This record gives sequence, C-alpha cells and structure tokens, in this order.
Amino acid sequence: MASAQAGQEIDRLIQVLAKLPGLGPRSARRAALALLKRRETLLEPLAQAMANAAAALKQCSACGNLDTADPCGLCRNPERENGVICVVEDVADLWALERAGVFRGRYHVLGGALSALDGVTPDRLNIGPLRERARGAGEIILAMNATVEGQTTSHYLLDLLEPLQVKVTRLALGVPVGGELDYLDEGTLSAAFKARREF
Amino acid sequence: MASAQAGQEIDRLIQVLAKLPGLGPRSARRAALALLKRRETLLEPLAQAMANAAAALKQCSACGNLDTADPCGLCRNPERENGVICVVEDVADLWALERAGVFRGRYHVLGGALSALDGVTPDRLNIGPLRERARGAGEIILAMNATVEGQTTSHYLLDLLEPLQVKVTRLALGVPVGGELDYLDEGTLSAAFKARREF
Repeated sequence: MASAQAGQEIDRLIQVLAKLPGLGPRSARRAALALLKRRETLLEPLAQAMANAAAALKQCSACGNLDTADPCGLCRNPERENGVICVVEDVADLWALERAGVFRGRYHVLGGALSALDGVTPDRLNIGPLRERARGAGEIILAMNATVEGQTTSHYLLDLLEPLQVKVTRLALGVPVGGELDYLDEGTLSAAFKARREF
Repeated sequence: MASAQAGQEIDRLIQVLAKLPGLGPRSARRAALALLKRRETLLEPLAQAMANAAAALKQCSACGNLDTADPCGLCRNPERENGVICVVEDVADLWALERAGVFRGRYHVLGGALSALDGVTPDRLNIGPLRERARGAGEIILAMNATVEGQTTSHYLLDLLEPLQVKVTRLALGVPVGGELDYLDEGTLSAAFKARREF
C-alpha cells in the first residue's frame, strides 16, 4: 500500500493522480499530500478549475481543437488563411505551434497517431473529416511527431490524400536550435546531413 | 497565454496544476489536456478521489499524521512500541519509513523543517507537543532529511530535548545502497568515511 496507514481514500487519490502524464507513483504521492495539506489554496482551487474547464470546453466540430466555443476561435478567426491546413496529432501540438507563432492557416487535430501496438486504427482518429476539408485546399502540412507512430500516420495520410491531388508537405527534420551534435541520435544527424543546404 | 486560443478556463486549470509538486508548466499543460480528453476515466475519478480524501482524512492530534481516524492507526496500534518516537519532517517521510518497515515505534510529524529562508520558525512546526511526548520516552529518533534545513531542525530539537535527559539518536549518514562512489558528493563520502566500521 502506497500510503502506509492512511486509508483507502488517499490510496485511491494517489492511484488516480499517477494516471496524469508526467506523474509517477512517487510524485503522485507527493502531489496527493500537497493537495491534502493545502486544501484551501490547492485542492479546492484545483477542483474548481477542473469543473470550470470541463464545463466550458468543447471539441471543435470543424478541426478537433478544444475551445470554449464551437467552431473554435482558430476556425472562426477571419484573419487566418483558409487554404492551408496543418494536421497535428494532438491539441498540445497545436498549442506548441501557436506559441511558436509560425503558422497563420487552419488546423486539423487527429486526436492521436496510428499505433498497431496501442490498437489505434484510422477509424479511431479524426481522419474522415480531414479528407473532406482537404478537397480544394492549397496545401496540407503534416506536422506529426518525428516518432514511428507519427511517421506511420504521415504516410497513411499521404496515401489517403494523394487522389485529391493536393500539395502535401511535412516538417523538416534536422538539428534542433541549440542542439549539440554530440548529443544527437544518428537518425537526426543523418536527416540533417541529407537535407543540408547551401549558405 | 499557455493554451493559445483555448480560453481562460483551461489557463486557470494549467496554472493550478503547475502548483502540484513534480509538475512544471509543460507537464501541467499535458496533464490539463489529459484531464479534458479523458473526462469520464480521469477528470471525474480525480475530482471524486479528491473530494473523498479531503472529506475522510484528518490530522492526527497525537502525532500529526494524516489518517481517516484521529488518533491515527499508527498511534492506536497496540502492537507498536510506546517508548520510542521517530520524529520526521513530513507525512511523506513517515510513509517512506513505513514502506521500508524498519521501525515499530511511534511517530511524530513536524510538518516541515526550520528554514530561515522560507520563514519557517519553531512555532510553525508541531514541536510543542513533541516536548510533552518525549518526557519519559526511552528514545527519540530524529529522522530529518540530510539537508541544511533538516540538520538545523535536528540541532534545534536536540537542544530542546536535552533538559529532558532522554536518549536522542539520528539516522546514519553514508553511502546509499546501490550508490557508486564516483557519483556521490564529497559530504556523503566524507560522512561515510568518518563513520566507517570494522568488518
């Protein structure tokens, strides 16, 4: 038992907290204790924030983003370019690109990546609507993670979109800014080498 | 804004999650997304577990432990030795010792360690009752963390307990099991060297 003598309520809390990404069993115990020691300043605000966010947020029926409105703010924004759709695995990836501020088009959130191991098949992803949206688009940017699952998904989408004769691009692979060659894996180095450009 | 276009509810949730020990801004974003994507399997069980734990758990008025009963299970357990009190900074430390199963006496949880930097003075810790409990005890084990704050607290308690003429001990410093000398700091090596024992 994780919490020695403290009863099943706290064991249950630790168990659920440990399901959050980024929290292991040890940090879940620390988080549970912090919540219980700081009820007014941590536990109650968290409960409130969870309830508010759950009540306010919905999934955008156009792109799959999470927002307080449907369609979401990005889909409704008239200043964003309509003809370019950036496909991402997850809302977190959309947020990351928005923080980088590099893209002014529309998004499409798949809700994951194809994975034979985890049983994620195409019908479990937000792929059907993408096909509809891609019709007539100027460019589809496949901004998948550079993982096996991400690349599998990219290739699947490429095959799927090919009949539509739309331009499909993907993010460049290479040395990350601030990255030291000595610490990079061979796949990255090889990709960066092959894609080298003239000064 | 952390979450790009997703509204203040999710920003607030990320902000509160980031206060949990072990979660930084990035993992708080991931945790918030996980909560919102898995409402039935994660968000609702967590809300429930938090409410249940908060409702069920109280602080033991004898030792400062968290439990569903007051006095706590450890204080009520008739099989534990009464004359030995192990003083710890935090409930998490008590749990760690109970997991190790090395101690069969009673505990006393201070609720922190003295820290001039963080403004933790003796009156903010559960020290007064310890003095009462220590009267007539056979041994007081000071199981503080081996940090500046922990050691400061140990010395403070040692001074406080001295007039009671009770035996006061502390945990041994040394090489942790599995530890490699090459990776240990000089303080640990020096302590382990000084406390060396004959085979």
